[in-house]
Amino acid sequence: MRVLGVDPGLTRMGIGLVDGRLGAPLTMVAAGVIRTPAGAPIHERLLGIDTQIAEWFDEYQPDAVAVERMFAQEGVRTIMGTAQAAGVAMVAAARRGLPVALHTPSEVKAAVTGDGRAQKEQVAAMVVRVLRLAEAPKPVDATDALALAVCHIWRGGAADRIAAAMERQGLSADSGSVPLHRTRGRKRGGFR
Amino acid sequence: MRVLGVDPGLTRMGIGLVDGRLGAPLTMVAAGVIRTPAGAPIHERLLGIDTQIAEWFDEYQPDAVAVERMFAQEGVRTIMGTAQAAGVAMVAAARRGLPVALHTPSEVKAAVTGDGRAQKEQVAAMVVRVLRLAEAPKPVDATDALALAVCHIWRGGAADRIAAAMERQGLSADSGSVPLHRTRGRKRGGFR
Repeated sequence: MRVLGVDPGLTRMGIGLVDGRLGAPLTMVAAGVIRTPAGAPIHERLLGIDTQIAEWFDEYQPDAVAVERMFAQEGVRTIMGTAQAAGVAMVAAARRGLPVALHTPSEVKAAVTGDGRAQKEQVAAMVVRVLRLAEAPKPVDATDALALAVCHIWRGGAADRIAAAMERQGLSADSGSVPLHRTRGRKRGGFR
Repeated sequence: MRVLGVDPGLTRMGIGLVDGRLGAPLTMVAAGVIRTPAGAPIHERLLGIDTQIAEWFDEYQPDAVAVERMFAQEGVRTIMGTAQAAGVAMVAAARRGLPVALHTPSEVKAAVTGDGRAQKEQVAAMVVRVLRLAEAPKPVDATDALALAVCHIWRGGAADRIAAAMERQGLSADSGSVPLHRTRGRKRGGFR
């Protein structure tokens, strides 16, 4: 299974690709960032993300996409831009029929370090160790994206099935649960 | 000039198409809403918007797109969904090389009724009058989208050039100014 992790952002969007499965060693395939210029109009920046993430999809053909689920910790303006960047990544994945999962920062920390309140540095250190890297990829957004991909693989398919069941029962995915969703095979235009 | 107005939202996204130019009568071409099911995963809803707005673009071939610029008046969760819906609409327009403009609710009210603090009903009444309709299209999101398109035409190209100049000078488009942007002719992938 190849997972593309996305740490969303307008100025820098971390991308991290990891190969592996639960119970076997994981391998980093690639990591980097998508950048858009801070001064450009928002729709041009979003188009830049759309264009660039398409190249990542085309080059690495991931099986699933894991995106950080955001909360209202930063200023509203930042949140809106970050939310839009995440939205573009999600649509790009959904358009290709790829399963999209959202993981909160706490879920990523817990999955990767065992501590949902771990520091950024601890997470980076574990990413280096788990993926047997010489050092953490820079900028930190790339490492965070790798952590998301690792989290996604380690949380595995069982969490996915639980989340689908909760979704069916109308339970909020924000209630500390397991917000994973799959779309593969979904028909297009089904909302009309 | 044909303008497609977008009143963004995840559950209901208003779409309104207006033909016309400054100083001549305006005509409604079409109005309606894009809906996505409230219970569906966010990426599926965004894909639904992406798919449906493409059909509006294909059918009506607008020359420009006007989207409501949002502010932090509602809950953060609503804002994020609305921002993502707006982002999908903007990317869809930018991907087609269409100019995208953002107008705040006050700008729309001021342009359509002459009063930036007009009530929703006043805006709807003016939309009906200006477009010579029998009644305001329902739901209200469709009427709001028409108001955006009317605002865009009436604010015209001069505002556009002022905004571009302000953007170049690094002035915030939120400071009560004229946040219009054009992308036509932009090369793809230029951010790499």
